[in-house]
Amino acid sequence: MTRTRFQSGLDELKGRLTEMSITAERAIDLGVEAYLGRDADTANEVFKVERATNSAEREIDQLAIDLLAMQQPMAVDLRFITACMKINADLERVGDLAVNIAERALAEINRPKMQLPADLGRMATTAAGMIRRALDSFVDANAELAEAVLIMDDAVDRMNKEIFVSMASLMRSNPQAVDQALDAVVVARALERVADHATNIAEDVIFWVKGKDVRHGVAEQAS
Amino acid sequence: MTRTRFQSGLDELKGRLTEMSITAERAIDLGVEAYLGRDADTANEVFKVERATNSAEREIDQLAIDLLAMQQPMAVDLRFITACMKINADLERVGDLAVNIAERALAEINRPKMQLPADLGRMATTAAGMIRRALDSFVDANAELAEAVLIMDDAVDRMNKEIFVSMASLMRSNPQAVDQALDAVVVARALERVADHATNIAEDVIFWVKGKDVRHGVAEQAS
Repeated sequence: MTRTRFQSGLDELKGRLTEMSITAERAIDLGVEAYLGRDADTANEVFKVERATNSAEREIDQLAIDLLAMQQPMAVDLRFITACMKINADLERVGDLAVNIAERALAEINRPKMQLPADLGRMATTAAGMIRRALDSFVDANAELAEAVLIMDDAVDRMNKEIFVSMASLMRSNPQAVDQALDAVVVARALERVADHATNIAEDVIFWVKGKDVRHGVAEQAS
Repeated sequence: MTRTRFQSGLDELKGRLTEMSITAERAIDLGVEAYLGRDADTANEVFKVERATNSAEREIDQLAIDLLAMQQPMAVDLRFITACMKINADLERVGDLAVNIAERALAEINRPKMQLPADLGRMATTAAGMIRRALDSFVDANAELAEAVLIMDDAVDRMNKEIFVSMASLMRSNPQAVDQALDAVVVARALERVADHATNIAEDVIFWVKGKDVRHGVAEQAS
């Protein structure tokens, strides 16, 4: 009976974390949409969504601590719960990065519009996709999918470096583009950090799943 | 007897985390020293120190998980151990940020030296000092000291914004300063994120200590 309550607590934890991930991904999508579309309403929506991730983070943390306190967890559950706490912290930071992007969106609104040689839309799609896949790998306990996330991170790092180099070159040749190019650099770095958080999550999943492999037999219960 | 072994495990956890914090702080100091002094040897030292923080992070995590598995922890110990895991993750990220700074140091070596209106040395001292105080507040379970860290974070945010504005202005007026000014912006943002991690740690300490206050009586054992 207690075991069942514990088990449903684990399920709730996984469900809450999945919701949190959808919210964090949405914050990034909205932030980049606000930046590319110069849309203050969408930027303000990001600030609202980020406050929601902050409350969700605290609640998820408390849920995890309550589960740890509820009974002597088995090793496999322990790894699952501690992985949840780490993933939770990463997702909350993704919300912070969405706010950084939304701040740049608001700054851009007052500036002349400029076509920049920086495909931030594509970079955002890749970074947000990494968050989604990292969470999918977590929900499905799929280490292979988690490893695919690590490979995507290299692509995002490359995009960030390319944008850095091309924005520096633009600023040298056109001083009037400095503010807009600088904002693009900041947005690209924020997206690169989103990808880093997805990578952290994927690494936690690999650690958790490998722990399960070692402890074969009790492995199924937490998945 | 088991309780004593658990207690010494908690002490070891605290000791390892304190070492980790000293190492992370050193990585930041070295990174900024390498950047300001254009010194490749010091930059390479940062890469070595960062690898050490990566191994330390994994060991500290394992130690925390082993403690959670060892016995049914009391609420106060549970909060302490989970706070350690969060602080550990923050300190590892500080190491990553030191690497970002060291990379900018290596990039600067090939560029003409330039006097920039950006006091990154002062900003680094403040950010590294925040890490030290955050850890002191943790070791002493001192919520007041932790709250002082939160106030310092506002000062670092201000320095970051000032550097951003003055570097943008420099780039507009002197296109030849673009690369150096852009590096200064990246270093300033890295330091601002170091300060954010110190803030996260301080918040964890406040949460942990307040948990102790509520659970008066059993409060002393984990301190």
